[in-house]
Amino acid sequence: QRRHEQLAGKVEVPVDALRQERLVEGGRVYRQTFVIRSYEVGVDKTASIETLLNHFQETALNHVWMSGLAGDGFGATRGMITNNLIWVVTRMHVQIERYPTWGDVVEIDTWVLASGKNGMRRDWLIRDYKSGQILARATSTWVMMNQKTRRLSKMPDEVRAEISPHYLERSAILEKNSEKIVRLEEDAAEYVRSNLTPRRSDLDMNQHVNNVKYIGWMLESLPSPVSEGHELTKMTLEYRRECNQSDVVQSMTSPEIPSPSVSGSSPDKEFSYSPGSFALTPEMTNSASIGPLQYTHLLRLQHDG
Amino acid sequence: QRRHEQLAGKVEVPVDALRQERLVEGGRVYRQTFVIRSYEVGVDKTASIETLLNHFQETALNHVWMSGLAGDGFGATRGMITNNLIWVVTRMHVQIERYPTWGDVVEIDTWVLASGKNGMRRDWLIRDYKSGQILARATSTWVMMNQKTRRLSKMPDEVRAEISPHYLERSAILEKNSEKIVRLEEDAAEYVRSNLTPRRSDLDMNQHVNNVKYIGWMLESLPSPVSEGHELTKMTLEYRRECNQSDVVQSMTSPEIPSPSVSGSSPDKEFSYSPGSFALTPEMTNSASIGPLQYTHLLRLQHDG
Repeated sequence: QRRHEQLAGKVEVPVDALRQERLVEGGRVYRQTFVIRSYEVGVDKTASIETLLNHFQETALNHVWMSGLAGDGFGATRGMITNNLIWVVTRMHVQIERYPTWGDVVEIDTWVLASGKNGMRRDWLIRDYKSGQILARATSTWVMMNQKTRRLSKMPDEVRAEISPHYLERSAILEKNSEKIVRLEEDAAEYVRSNLTPRRSDLDMNQHVNNVKYIGWMLESLPSPVSEGHELTKMTLEYRRECNQSDVVQSMTSPEIPSPSVSGSSPDKEFSYSPGSFALTPEMTNSASIGPLQYTHLLRLQHDG
Repeated sequence: QRRHEQLAGKVEVPVDALRQERLVEGGRVYRQTFVIRSYEVGVDKTASIETLLNHFQETALNHVWMSGLAGDGFGATRGMITNNLIWVVTRMHVQIERYPTWGDVVEIDTWVLASGKNGMRRDWLIRDYKSGQILARATSTWVMMNQKTRRLSKMPDEVRAEISPHYLERSAILEKNSEKIVRLEEDAAEYVRSNLTPRRSDLDMNQHVNNVKYIGWMLESLPSPVSEGHELTKMTLEYRRECNQSDVVQSMTSPEIPSPSVSGSSPDKEFSYSPGSFALTPEMTNSASIGPLQYTHLLRLQHDG
């Protein structure tokens, strides 16, 4: 008998059993099992990159909840809610070994560690549930924003005291040189997609465009002949600015040309939502393969004219 | 011990246990439990209408699979695959009593019955898992399309023999007058949203825009002051035409004015993807409520100029 049948007499059901989630490794690692659903895959029946990032978000929030820290916010701890603070992501780096297919079962591990004085790092590992093979690795950096002023905030001691007991010093990815993003020369961007506007469903509970949607916009700039027949195998996105429902966004991409000017020195920092880089790899079925492609990317607030 | 922990020794895991699915009522009703995820809800923390329709699709496909009928297609039976046939939806009617919230557990029942000589009807019921309260009801009509010619097809006897033993004569919704759609006067449409283009991620395994995406386009035509503070409580969509990745679509909506001219007599049938109607109800938190609103809608291939 399955658990939910045993409990089907409409008693109080522990949601963790239904979510197929648990804390492992001394309570520091949150683990959840997902079956890849029909609407989470694309034309080729493999999960989209957005699906993996949605699962990352889901496990992060469930982790906060299961650790007993959650207030009623979007992953905010009780101490954060007292101080009107929300989490915002400033960087996301993902490496994909293999995309799971419709019906595949994946097991996602996530944990948190310190990032500087005011930030938190969150890592993920996705494994194939049956073979244990690693499918993807990811790491992200988070800081706190005041919900009213929309300005970044230091981490209050009260919040550090809540979350630091859960830190685990372990890295899902060992990055070389922190994968610096080569600056995109905006006037020379090879692919530009303009007039991208958020749909209401792109907003999340924090009232701004959810970070996962930026990835769709990033890939949207590529012409079909490039995006078809290739799959994203690596990406880094830096998030510099909130995107609100009334904003109009421009997505620019160029093949990467190494340059000493990296993202940290970008003069248009104020207007950039998100510089990034990503790599595409030909799919196995793609006979006209032209090798892995490395791109640099910029998503920015659009100026008319 | 939870089922997936008992089985965590990397043996073959029955996916039905992980999906929390089973056949009930003599094998005729497929039932699956879902926990509403963080990325399935909007700003107000309740599930979007797209989420419910995604769950409908998921349960339909899992039902076909669990009944032992599935080939490797998108819900196609082995007999359909032999004949190069795919399922296409021609009509979807949904009534929402209450939207579930982030973390809520819902239980979805689905079953199929005959619809005329060549069609199949599929119904759904969504219940709150803990209280048993009905949250939503839906019914849909499906026919077969030849995957190569993209023309509708009769149901081959071979396919009828596969699926008819699973028919259950029961209705999730008792419709008055089949909820006929009042024809939208296109030149006088109150709200028009043009230049809607499919994203690659809008396509499904059948290589056309998934039917769930039409609903996003439908609601996209409404101005924010209307869509905010109201929720969709009823909708009917008729699907007349496939939408492909290169198509440009126009979404038109007007408050409904009863008229004897119903959708069946629409002269522009050939160019319409989808006429529809829907009702919005003020949310409980909306103090400036102006009562339930009834709209008629048309999604069509856009002609320039």
